[in-house]
Formats: sequence, C-alpha cells, structure tokens
Amino acid sequence: MSLVLGVDAGATKTFALVADKDGHILGFGQGGSGNHQVAGLEPALAVIRRSSEDALAQAGASPPVDFGFFGLAGADLPVDFALLTPAVEGMGIARRVCIKNDTMVALRAGLKRSWGVAVISGAGFNAGGIGPDGREIQLPGLGVLSGDWGGGGDIAQGVIRLICRAWDGRGQPTVLTEMVLTALGLPSVEELIAQLYQSQFDYYPGQFDQRRLLALVPLVFEAACGGDQVAQDLVVRV
Amino acid sequence: MSLVLGVDAGATKTFALVADKDGHILGFGQGGSGNHQVAGLEPALAVIRRSSEDALAQAGASPPVDFGFFGLAGADLPVDFALLTPAVEGMGIARRVCIKNDTMVALRAGLKRSWGVAVISGAGFNAGGIGPDGREIQLPGLGVLSGDWGGGGDIAQGVIRLICRAWDGRGQPTVLTEMVLTALGLPSVEELIAQLYQSQFDYYPGQFDQRRLLALVPLVFEAACGGDQVAQDLVVRV
Repeated sequence: MSLVLGVDAGATKTFALVADKDGHILGFGQGGSGNHQVAGLEPALAVIRRSSEDALAQAGASPPVDFGFFGLAGADLPVDFALLTPAVEGMGIARRVCIKNDTMVALRAGLKRSWGVAVISGAGFNAGGIGPDGREIQLPGLGVLSGDWGGGGDIAQGVIRLICRAWDGRGQPTVLTEMVLTALGLPSVEELIAQLYQSQFDYYPGQFDQRRLLALVPLVFEAACGGDQVAQDLVVRV
Repeated sequence: MSLVLGVDAGATKTFALVADKDGHILGFGQGGSGNHQVAGLEPALAVIRRSSEDALAQAGASPPVDFGFFGLAGADLPVDFALLTPAVEGMGIARRVCIKNDTMVALRAGLKRSWGVAVISGAGFNAGGIGPDGREIQLPGLGVLSGDWGGGGDIAQGVIRLICRAWDGRGQPTVLTEMVLTALGLPSVEELIAQLYQSQFDYYPGQFDQRRLLALVPLVFEAACGGDQVAQDLVVRV
C-alpha cells in the first residue's frame, strides 16, 4: 500500500500523521519540540523521527513511506534547509522528502484553495503565504532579530516586563503581578527578577527554567477579560 | 601617603583613578569591559584588576590603597554584590572596598550636592538616584527582562529590526539599510539576517561578532539628523 507521512513540528509539540493516497488517516504520533532553534538540533531531530515512527507503527507499516512532508518550525533561512534536508532524508523514513516552514502546514490545513496567507502565533510568531501563481513568501520569523513579535514567548516576556515596571513604579499596577507570582510559586517580584536573571549566567545557580514562562500566557487573556488595563494593552498589541 | 582608588567599570570601557586625600589625581588606568554580565566574570575581574594596578603604578604606589570605590556596571541585584564583593576584596588592591552600581559614579560625578538622579545610556541602560535623606534607589537594569530599554545595544537591535521590516515590506524604507550594510561590509539584508541568525546557534558557523552592532548606533543619529523618518522615530523613542 502506498503511504504518505505528514509532520507538523512546532516549538512546543510535534504531530505526525500517516495516510493512504485517498487521505484516510492510518496512524498518528506525537512528541515535544521539533524546532531545532528551540530544542537544539539533535533533540529536535529525535522528536521528528520518533513521532514519525510511532505514526508508521500505528499504521502497521514500516519505513520508508513513499513520500514525507515535513512542516518544520525553525526552517526559516537557507542555512536551515541546508542543515535539515540531509538530516531528515538520512532518517530513511520517506523515499522522497519535502521540507517547508510550518506556516505552510497551517496554510494548507486552513484553506480549500491552494493560495492564501497563514499567520502562526504559537510559542513563536511567523507568517507566510502562497500566491495564486504558486509563488511563496515567508517572513524571516526570527523574533526580535527580524521584528517578528507576537508569539507566546514574546507575550510572556512582555508580562515580566510589565510586572517589573509596575513594581518599580514606572508602570501601572496590574493584577498580573499577583497572578504570575502565584502561578510560579514565588514570593515577590524581587525574587522573580533575581531567579530569571540568575538563570542567564553560568556563574549563578540556574534555578529557573525559562520555558515555565509560556504557561503565563493564558493569564494575560484571563486578566484582560477581567478588565485589567495593562493586560488589555498587551493583548491589543498582539 | 594616604591614597584612594576610584574605578568606573562599564560594559564597554573601564577607567581607574588614584588620588590623594585632597583629590589630586596621581594615576590613571583603563581597560575594556568590566561588566561581568557582558564580558563574563573572570575577564571582567581581570580588567578591573589591571586598570587599578596601572593607575597605582602611574601614581608610583603599590597596593593596597587605603580605600577603593568600585562603581560597577552589572552590579544590579543582591546576587551580584554577593559575587563581586569578595572577588574585588580578594584582589588586595584596597584595604577597604565599597562597591556600588555605576549609576552612582555618574550621579556623584555630575552633581555638586549629594543627592539626585543619574540616567546611563551607554552600551546598556540604567538609572538610579539618591534622596536628600541618603536613601538610594536603583532600577533593576536588566534590559528587556526588567523593561529597561534605551542603551546602545537596544538601539542597535532596533536598527536591525527596522532594516528587516523595510526589507520585507512591513516597514518604511530607510537610508539606514544602505548605511548599515556599508558599515558592516555586507552585500544584502538577506546576508545580514543570515549571519546574525547563524551566530546564535552552535551548529552553524558563527561568522558574526554581535559586538560589531554597537558601532551602528552613531549611524542612527546621523540618519536622523539627515531627515530619515525611521531613524528619527527610533531616536525619539530613546
């Protein structure tokens, strides 16, 4: 039976599906971050491989499938494709491999026609589009570096900044202060600042896993819906 | 002869002065970054030590002096003082050591009275103040983390962001594009983005020393004075 594999690898989670040529789903696999910028190269590749193999196993098939499409967050610049293409091909999971940025997965999943624009606001932010003539365009998608602001990581950083400025008097008071300290189990803004700060330098004990900050993002929407002006301003900026 | 040593250690440069108790300058020493956040702990300490020793040598004196005042950029949080105080005391350069954030150097250097506010916009940004009652206040001074925007590093990052957005069509065209590419000796915005990006990851060749970006800051003021709207908006934000 002729099979195709589709992988959507993001900064937070990776999904893999195996289908037959008529589009019937036969197997599903999942894993954590498949973004080499976020997870590191080898861990990201391991997640992509394991998710794919799980999907194939559930489909009762063995690698390689005929065709594998990999929509990879972090596949932004030519150097990324030069790195990722041989690595994914070398897994031996698919005879033919096509790698695109994960914006293209969102675009094709959300449209019946073949052209349009997709905006991703996940842990990171990115956007891309395909024209009616097939031409593709892609933002650099490199965060602050390329002016691409708007993912959960940026929002979380915004929350910390706003809490700090409420604390030192330069910003407006916000319910986010109490919500964030409770969520993180920390006693004070001073302690939050200290732990975030220390985790950036190897000569301080690194008590804080910065990935915990992503869990703060829903609190921003909760506070905004509750009428907090500081949270509303941040949401409006997104 | 009873001597005092004063050190002003910033992210870019470190100055050390030796004076007698009447304030006559007897020796001067200088070095590069004395900020442990920027240069790393050991390199920063080595700069502070060498600058101090050079100033003492020029004064024809040997360590230790009676009193040493160290105004250190990067001395922001209690953990910093806990780290830096024994390290500086351990150098044996001064019998008594006082360490403060470098904002306090600027404040005392710029005022005849003993109280006021100092704002530093160097490679980084920071501010602090002393009240008439002697109470001191200090911003966290941790950049984006604590909402302290405005130093040369932030301006340089702003320039890159604005050039990227002018390039991909989301921002206004700006003369900064050509000025920055010429200054960095790069052929295109694509190449600039690629090199900045690659230098962030250890699995790509790191061709770009991010410190080169600081040299872009004067170009922003040059472009703003020449009438460039994009540059003017960035300067106004500072």
